[in-house]
Amino acid sequence: MSQDDFLQSLRALVGAAHVLGGEQAAPFLVDWRGHFRGAARAVVRPGSTAEVAAVVRCCAAAGVPIVPQGGNTGLCGGATPDTSGRAIVLLLTRLDRIREIDTDNDSMTVEAGCLLQTVQQAAQAAGRLFPLSLAAEGSCTVGGNLATNAGGTQVLRYGNMRELCLGLEVVDAEGEVWHGLRGLRKDNTGYDLRDLYIGSEGTLGIITAATLKLHPLPAARCTAMLAVPDLESALALLSRARTGFGAALTGFELMSADCLALVTATFRQQRLPFAGEGAQAPWFALLEMSDAESEQHGRERFETVLGTALEAGEALDAVIAESLAHGRALWHLRESITLAQAQAGRSLKHDVALPISRIPQFMRETGARLAEHFAGLRVMPFGHLGDGNLHYNLLSGPGFDAEALAARQDEIYACVHDAVHALGGSVSAEHGVGQLKVAEVARYKSAHELRLMARIKAALDPQGLLNPGKVLARPDQADSAAAS
Amino acid sequence: MSQDDFLQSLRALVGAAHVLGGEQAAPFLVDWRGHFRGAARAVVRPGSTAEVAAVVRCCAAAGVPIVPQGGNTGLCGGATPDTSGRAIVLLLTRLDRIREIDTDNDSMTVEAGCLLQTVQQAAQAAGRLFPLSLAAEGSCTVGGNLATNAGGTQVLRYGNMRELCLGLEVVDAEGEVWHGLRGLRKDNTGYDLRDLYIGSEGTLGIITAATLKLHPLPAARCTAMLAVPDLESALALLSRARTGFGAALTGFELMSADCLALVTATFRQQRLPFAGEGAQAPWFALLEMSDAESEQHGRERFETVLGTALEAGEALDAVIAESLAHGRALWHLRESITLAQAQAGRSLKHDVALPISRIPQFMRETGARLAEHFAGLRVMPFGHLGDGNLHYNLLSGPGFDAEALAARQDEIYACVHDAVHALGGSVSAEHGVGQLKVAEVARYKSAHELRLMARIKAALDPQGLLNPGKVLARPDQADSAAAS
Repeated sequence: MSQDDFLQSLRALVGAAHVLGGEQAAPFLVDWRGHFRGAARAVVRPGSTAEVAAVVRCCAAAGVPIVPQGGNTGLCGGATPDTSGRAIVLLLTRLDRIREIDTDNDSMTVEAGCLLQTVQQAAQAAGRLFPLSLAAEGSCTVGGNLATNAGGTQVLRYGNMRELCLGLEVVDAEGEVWHGLRGLRKDNTGYDLRDLYIGSEGTLGIITAATLKLHPLPAARCTAMLAVPDLESALALLSRARTGFGAALTGFELMSADCLALVTATFRQQRLPFAGEGAQAPWFALLEMSDAESEQHGRERFETVLGTALEAGEALDAVIAESLAHGRALWHLRESITLAQAQAGRSLKHDVALPISRIPQFMRETGARLAEHFAGLRVMPFGHLGDGNLHYNLLSGPGFDAEALAARQDEIYACVHDAVHALGGSVSAEHGVGQLKVAEVARYKSAHELRLMARIKAALDPQGLLNPGKVLARPDQADSAAAS
Repeated sequence: MSQDDFLQSLRALVGAAHVLGGEQAAPFLVDWRGHFRGAARAVVRPGSTAEVAAVVRCCAAAGVPIVPQGGNTGLCGGATPDTSGRAIVLLLTRLDRIREIDTDNDSMTVEAGCLLQTVQQAAQAAGRLFPLSLAAEGSCTVGGNLATNAGGTQVLRYGNMRELCLGLEVVDAEGEVWHGLRGLRKDNTGYDLRDLYIGSEGTLGIITAATLKLHPLPAARCTAMLAVPDLESALALLSRARTGFGAALTGFELMSADCLALVTATFRQQRLPFAGEGAQAPWFALLEMSDAESEQHGRERFETVLGTALEAGEALDAVIAESLAHGRALWHLRESITLAQAQAGRSLKHDVALPISRIPQFMRETGARLAEHFAGLRVMPFGHLGDGNLHYNLLSGPGFDAEALAARQDEIYACVHDAVHALGGSVSAEHGVGQLKVAEVARYKSAHELRLMARIKAALDPQGLLNPGKVLARPDQADSAAAS
């Protein structure tokens, strides 16, 4: 089929207004940070699951690769096509209906193009909580959250997107619709296709809708910040908080003193809520508790449990937020770290996960190794300690400038990720693989596991047309990588 | 290879004492209820993951099917070989080591042959909770729990076995070991092999070990029983309890008045804890709350929240357990239902799940349909309302005797399961498929979903040697079923 005929077929399927080229297509061919650029035959915006299926059948017949895209907020280039211009970008944003909210079943069924924030708000309006929460929630879509198994700040209590999903509707590589929108808590009637599609970044099928789990709205959210003398104490504190608050503990964030010093130096209206010894602490923990009773009860629980932590020396000082506004101010310190780092120089980000018990060893050994081989590099770690997920960010500075960072980027990645891998960790905790980390995945996974993954890919997408080159290397490239 | 040579190879791999035949093999060729009987070349008991892998390689080379078995407590014949005698039974019970408990990471790594109770006790000894709890816990193994994605009474709060597993070690169909024992809460580096193996009943690989999630031990467990005027009220009560107790609500069981009347009539020392109007209620709910503070606090919470339920008319009466013993007595009523039914006559069990919101409609319509077509059959439903999981059991009685039940069994199954399917439910909530429900799965799943499952099976077990005929029909049988 000629390119003209192919585009004509697409226009017939979704309407001419929804097959974009040229200037109109440009914003969808680059990721939001401008790190990945590609080309495509067209950007296609189907308006329904049936249209998605029809577009996929058309592409399958013509041998055209398909790159699904939602809000285009990913960090790993998973939604950006390669530069060959062979693929189409399949935009899911017109599939934005909330199909059903079932409060008795605590579930809601939404289409893939719904914004996460829209879902959160619709749940709240129905008196329920949809707990997934992350920085891009105003512009990312549920389909992208599912494709990358998104995490965020509430995982400790509610799990990743995987744990928040009951069922899926998926268009497979042949353009057939899998109707897996089950609103069930228990269903043991065969292979877990749902979890196979979740986190597969559009390489096994195209998620068009999902049935999501809802939770009760907590009566109150309480926040506390603690100054912590060392990482071992942070771990003891986490354990104490988990026991003391049970499942009411919804967040446990860790930040290094350097991170917060950068925030208060960059944004003058922000300040550390500690004086004296507390202000000198090397680590700070931010705790969130969702109380089913009342704000009063939540604060009393904080006082009781954090009191024992202070006595045990696991914390040097503690501040319990007196109001919602006070709590938001404490969270604002945490949320400002990324911005402050962006203003402070060039950075290398590592989104890693470790067994929680090994985090002190990882920090000690990796810090020492970096100091030895990359003296002057500034280590700025923070993250979701309750999930073992660290954003182990490294900043250029006076002693290690932006050019050095750029020139030695691969060495630094390898240094950090080798250490993570040696301790049983993951080099992508919550951001996925996309095109950015395909080589890293190939480096750290066993040949056996890559082979199992490739077999599944071949079984569900025999032509290799679904988001090729993402998650797994293309078969030809994988062979050459294995041979090298 | 001759049978003698084959057995000789197995003896060389695991030791002659661990290749059983004749009388020694007999107990492993029939399920514990005596519903399924099969034959096998031998029952083989490897002592390590390496031995499992060696046995699988030996079988793969000889084209011999493998039926994995743990505690042999399943209800669907998933661990029983067919009658051809071609397979071996691979017994995992010698893999019974607890490899590691990591309290800082709240995880433990155990081998597949560990008894569930052993795992629970080891967690408790380390000051942690492993929450999976079910009737067979003293004799079922963790490997079987994973293979069937076991459920039980704590799913409402802690999830099924799937949600309790962080990582797996699996021997694949070629006898290669997948080292997926990751103790991570977040890991987005590729396809979710873990969840694909969980619930696949040994048809895609043989689970040899797992890293499991641990939870904090609650400070207190509190129990309450309520008399409920109708199913709509039971749903309202569930919603109120979820909001009022948050994640502290760990159990919400529903029982019909007929179920409890049978218990109190069968076991004279047991009695209903209600008088007057409460004793006349058609439904009873059993609630469990795990409190992070104290027994006193838990009881006060119960009083507050259940008080509002009584005022709203969602409950006619409520009893809050005054002591652990009192709480156990209330649970004992629930746990005695199965035994009482077993003594009362022949029964047909249905382990179904529904969207919780549709349970009243299901009960109403299915009850009416059964009364119309199978007058005299006694309907004895109970189950985990919080998970939408009903054990919708039917009993023979004076008006519908055991012979009628046996003769019309398939009609009755179809009547109940058709209704479940029409309302978006599952015909196997927590017991799996095994050999019992292969035809049911083929009946209710779309041809498309069966094809996706078959492709995955072919990708991971190309020779079709892993537990053939379980979950999915064998390819030859599936063809003939589709043609019929």
